[in-house]
Amino acid sequence: MPDIRRMADAIRFLSIDAILNAGEGHQGVPLGMAEIAATLYARHLKADPADPLWPDRDRVVLSNGHGSMLLYALLHLSGYPHVTTEALRGFRKLGSVCAGHPEIEQHAGIEITTGLLGQGIACAVGMAVAEARLAARFGPELVDHRTWAFVGDGCLQEGIGQEAISLAGHLRLGKLTFLWDDNHITDDGDTALSISEDTPARFRAANWHVEEVDGHDVDAVSAAIAAAKGDPRPSLIACRTTIARGLPRLEGRRGGHSAPLTPVDAAEARAARDWPHPPFHVPQEVLSDWRGALAGGAGARTGWAERLAAHPDAAEFRRWTAGDPPADWPRVAAALAEAAAAVAEPRPTIAASGDVCDALAGALPETMVLCADLEAPTNHKRGRAAFTAGDRAGSYVHCGVREHLMGAMTDGIAAHGGLRPINVTYLAFADYERPAMRMAALMGLPALFVFSHDSIGVGSNGPTHQPVEILASFRAMPDMRVFRPADAVETAEAWEIALDHRTGPTMLALSRQATAPVRLAAGENRSRRGAYVLAEADGPRAATILATGAEVALAMGARRNLAAQGVAAAVVSMPCWEIFEAQDAEYRARVLGDAPRIGVEAALSFGWERWLRQGDRFIGMTGFGASARAEVLYEHFGITVDRIVGAVLEATPGG
Amino acid sequence: MPDIRRMADAIRFLSIDAILNAGEGHQGVPLGMAEIAATLYARHLKADPADPLWPDRDRVVLSNGHGSMLLYALLHLSGYPHVTTEALRGFRKLGSVCAGHPEIEQHAGIEITTGLLGQGIACAVGMAVAEARLAARFGPELVDHRTWAFVGDGCLQEGIGQEAISLAGHLRLGKLTFLWDDNHITDDGDTALSISEDTPARFRAANWHVEEVDGHDVDAVSAAIAAAKGDPRPSLIACRTTIARGLPRLEGRRGGHSAPLTPVDAAEARAARDWPHPPFHVPQEVLSDWRGALAGGAGARTGWAERLAAHPDAAEFRRWTAGDPPADWPRVAAALAEAAAAVAEPRPTIAASGDVCDALAGALPETMVLCADLEAPTNHKRGRAAFTAGDRAGSYVHCGVREHLMGAMTDGIAAHGGLRPINVTYLAFADYERPAMRMAALMGLPALFVFSHDSIGVGSNGPTHQPVEILASFRAMPDMRVFRPADAVETAEAWEIALDHRTGPTMLALSRQATAPVRLAAGENRSRRGAYVLAEADGPRAATILATGAEVALAMGARRNLAAQGVAAAVVSMPCWEIFEAQDAEYRARVLGDAPRIGVEAALSFGWERWLRQGDRFIGMTGFGASARAEVLYEHFGITVDRIVGAVLEATPGG
Repeated sequence: MPDIRRMADAIRFLSIDAILNAGEGHQGVPLGMAEIAATLYARHLKADPADPLWPDRDRVVLSNGHGSMLLYALLHLSGYPHVTTEALRGFRKLGSVCAGHPEIEQHAGIEITTGLLGQGIACAVGMAVAEARLAARFGPELVDHRTWAFVGDGCLQEGIGQEAISLAGHLRLGKLTFLWDDNHITDDGDTALSISEDTPARFRAANWHVEEVDGHDVDAVSAAIAAAKGDPRPSLIACRTTIARGLPRLEGRRGGHSAPLTPVDAAEARAARDWPHPPFHVPQEVLSDWRGALAGGAGARTGWAERLAAHPDAAEFRRWTAGDPPADWPRVAAALAEAAAAVAEPRPTIAASGDVCDALAGALPETMVLCADLEAPTNHKRGRAAFTAGDRAGSYVHCGVREHLMGAMTDGIAAHGGLRPINVTYLAFADYERPAMRMAALMGLPALFVFSHDSIGVGSNGPTHQPVEILASFRAMPDMRVFRPADAVETAEAWEIALDHRTGPTMLALSRQATAPVRLAAGENRSRRGAYVLAEADGPRAATILATGAEVALAMGARRNLAAQGVAAAVVSMPCWEIFEAQDAEYRARVLGDAPRIGVEAALSFGWERWLRQGDRFIGMTGFGASARAEVLYEHFGITVDRIVGAVLEATPGG
Repeated sequence: MPDIRRMADAIRFLSIDAILNAGEGHQGVPLGMAEIAATLYARHLKADPADPLWPDRDRVVLSNGHGSMLLYALLHLSGYPHVTTEALRGFRKLGSVCAGHPEIEQHAGIEITTGLLGQGIACAVGMAVAEARLAARFGPELVDHRTWAFVGDGCLQEGIGQEAISLAGHLRLGKLTFLWDDNHITDDGDTALSISEDTPARFRAANWHVEEVDGHDVDAVSAAIAAAKGDPRPSLIACRTTIARGLPRLEGRRGGHSAPLTPVDAAEARAARDWPHPPFHVPQEVLSDWRGALAGGAGARTGWAERLAAHPDAAEFRRWTAGDPPADWPRVAAALAEAAAAVAEPRPTIAASGDVCDALAGALPETMVLCADLEAPTNHKRGRAAFTAGDRAGSYVHCGVREHLMGAMTDGIAAHGGLRPINVTYLAFADYERPAMRMAALMGLPALFVFSHDSIGVGSNGPTHQPVEILASFRAMPDMRVFRPADAVETAEAWEIALDHRTGPTMLALSRQATAPVRLAAGENRSRRGAYVLAEADGPRAATILATGAEVALAMGARRNLAAQGVAAAVVSMPCWEIFEAQDAEYRARVLGDAPRIGVEAALSFGWERWLRQGDRFIGMTGFGASARAEVLYEHFGITVDRIVGAVLEATPGG
């Protein structure tokens, strides 16, 4: 029998040594949760360090990511090859896999980036959803794993954490377990400073199974975990712990959270817990217990591989897991654009997006749509069944009015692998999702965020719901591709590009209002270069009109009007700035041209200086919107064909 | 006795008529909550339509803001002069006070802008906090009012709503009451699609008083409100309602939420409820009941005015309420900068901000600091006592790890009036607060958002906690002033400008790491023009280095180094772009100069094109940060004196 108490002490001293070596860190979590974590690994976790990417592994999420040394110690001790002693010595230093907060490195066993509180448990909800859907599709012989999340008080105070509790209970995600570090201490001191609610009662109100244990009592923790595994509801294991346990000066105190450690602290801890070993040294018998902890995982993985080899859907499972498109994807993608081009009437680009999403329900069954209570106005459900507590085969999650959770679930699904998450709501709510979208960008996850109601085109719901700055705010974000397609064809193209993009997220900003098509035939995916000359000038360019989204049709109207006056203007559609910026300088120069430029977008100009030189003009918004019908607002704010024509004439020599 | 049932019907038919007239709208809330609202107004609300700005009025928040016609009908019927029949006919049309969602117009009785779900009830928590603090300061004879919030299912699903429940219960805000429209329907249909928790139990777990009633039973609702008024805890009145009650085709159904109404619907409703009156007409006896509803308010206000006139602190109360600075404010402000200039050692600007905040605890006692569990690293508590369930005199709220709530509470405190809210956390968490900050900007509220840890200077906590795009994302937001001060003096100047700015919010982005002072003496507030020549070139400008925040010191180092090489560079500090843009062109041109420009900021370049022309250079970040010590990261990412020097030499003819 492994000595779990000593295994826990190994976590403690690796953490103390690494934090002392780094000069800063958060000892509270790894020392307080050492027994909980050691128990999970020694007795319950299904994983194999020899293959950290094994699809049927249990997922472990450290939602209280500041306690990152807990995770690194676990990975090091249980034998994940990338988390070497050298890496531990590099804790919080440039280049080490042991960063200040966990940063996704799945080959090293780090499942997901966490740190901003609450998001980790929300990602865990997404992982549990992914597991359930995949199990329904491929059967428990291929997909049968659990999701474990280490959770701090902060995670549960955050609204997103509360959203996670609510939806996980509703969806009855029985393979999801939260291990709560109930240590009564946050950065400010006693949790009583800011919370006095009955947390187990709060979970029970949301239909969770709750166990309450002494978090330092290995057998009690283990029994609670066993009970969690046997319960069909998601489980909270509320573990009463002493923060920074093992450090005589700090344990149970506010400073236990992250007060700087000293060599004296380390020496006192060694004496107090009878750990006479030098820094970063783990005695052989303890290491041996640790190396045996996940031994069962290797056998489980072998059995799983045999089942996969014999499985009739093995190829499809491998394709989903690899994130590869189906063999007929180029044909499917081309058909999407063709179908889009076949509709001549003006329509909202969100409707065109719904068509694409519907077509992919069958053609790309690994897509999983999440929507925040906007089924009717976004229309991305259609042929899809709901994923519910009773039916795991559905590919549409009614997330409720919980956008931040939905964003993080999207991250969790993408990080889990096997599914392609599609996140749907209004662009105004992108502000609620933003912290999760930032993590998608930082992690490079292939997630698609589809937003409708992208401008004053929202109409009379008014400025609260009208984005005017949100495009710019996401264009400012690294590694987030922002598409604003002009019409149905560009929308289909954007979907294709987004699904082809497997190393980062994409967002689409789509219109509520109908917009006239500007691309009347499918064919080459012209959005693939980010911006392109939609209509060249008839003759030498007198001006170049740059536009995105619904305003491209206005630009085309202006071009016709100008042509009638003998002024030759080109129209450039710019659906994705980030991709255009990545094109070679020659292409960019050719598209943008030397003529005077007019930028047109129903948004503020911030960022447009990238394309507009001194003397060029911008037609768009200068502040927040207003409550009136869309067409009234476009007139009111002067985003019209006539204004564009006027601007071109002003800018054109002799105009 | 007023006939509250007919009063409720008046709400119903004004709402139906206005929505039909507008062509769209959300009938579910006004029709479903008509009895609840009429009961509140007829029997309990303290307000006087003759003086909508009366400081001791009860505050009413329509958190489910899509049901805006409920509020407009209430204000119209109870006699608020600005909400005329004409305004109701203008519902959702340009220029009407009756916008699609409520937009703050306190003279019209609209207390706060709501619409993005969950934020309204969080603002209400802020209002209740403001009331309690002001009552502690000025006594119940001047401050003794309640906060009522109409709440939909969506508000309670949102994480911020859950945060509001948790903190309001903790702070025991007994004068706060939520009136929950428990209609079992959201936009997607039955609430059972996305939630199955026991909502009353969830409130009870957070120490709320809960009443459960039939929301169409006037006496039951009234009794529940009376019980709420008598309970020291915040109260939830869970009102079981039928959505869109009164519309035979839609009531109790999904379409009740916002399906388009037809004249047939209106006719059927009139027949069903015996309301034979033409559109927008309210029969005299019902109107008479309505005009009597708030009659008690006039008397209450008269008594209050008499108490105020006799109150020893009347002048101070009036000053706080008006939002005026104290008479000695210019002297206080000057002293802040002088104190900042007196410290010669490098230090974090967040520490300098803490000094200012501490000085204002006494000098500007109407300041109210909110902080999200970061007391130690931000240090803005110091001399302030905590505002707690037991002590309402404190001016520091431990908000817990609930940033979005904190942002909306800030809005609520500012909208309530009487206090100046100061919101404190890390800049990475500005993404959590963003939707509330957007509302502060949209409403033009005098709120101050103080953020520490503003760049890679965060150090080894890593990229999750290192803003690189957040400055740009807020510079993109209309009416939000973004300050990034270079040192302690500029920090004090920013505080002064922010507190002088009474028509909109300000945010400060401050450093965790120590930065060398660049302003060694106080005096004129040079930040008041947004950007200024900190150090002119010695001789004709060979280059202009534009920088913000901690990088200004690097720019000054580069200038010295260049001077030693005989290259004359000017350094321009740009603490606030928005203010600089508002300066006259001549000033801007003079500051920016004609020489080659080098922009320096430890952030992405997005937006910097506003100041940098083709051929100018930018030194900053190109993607997310990393986990290492700050000084290592500055070197790693090439944000150094040497790089600036090199860029100047490259850009300078003959360099």
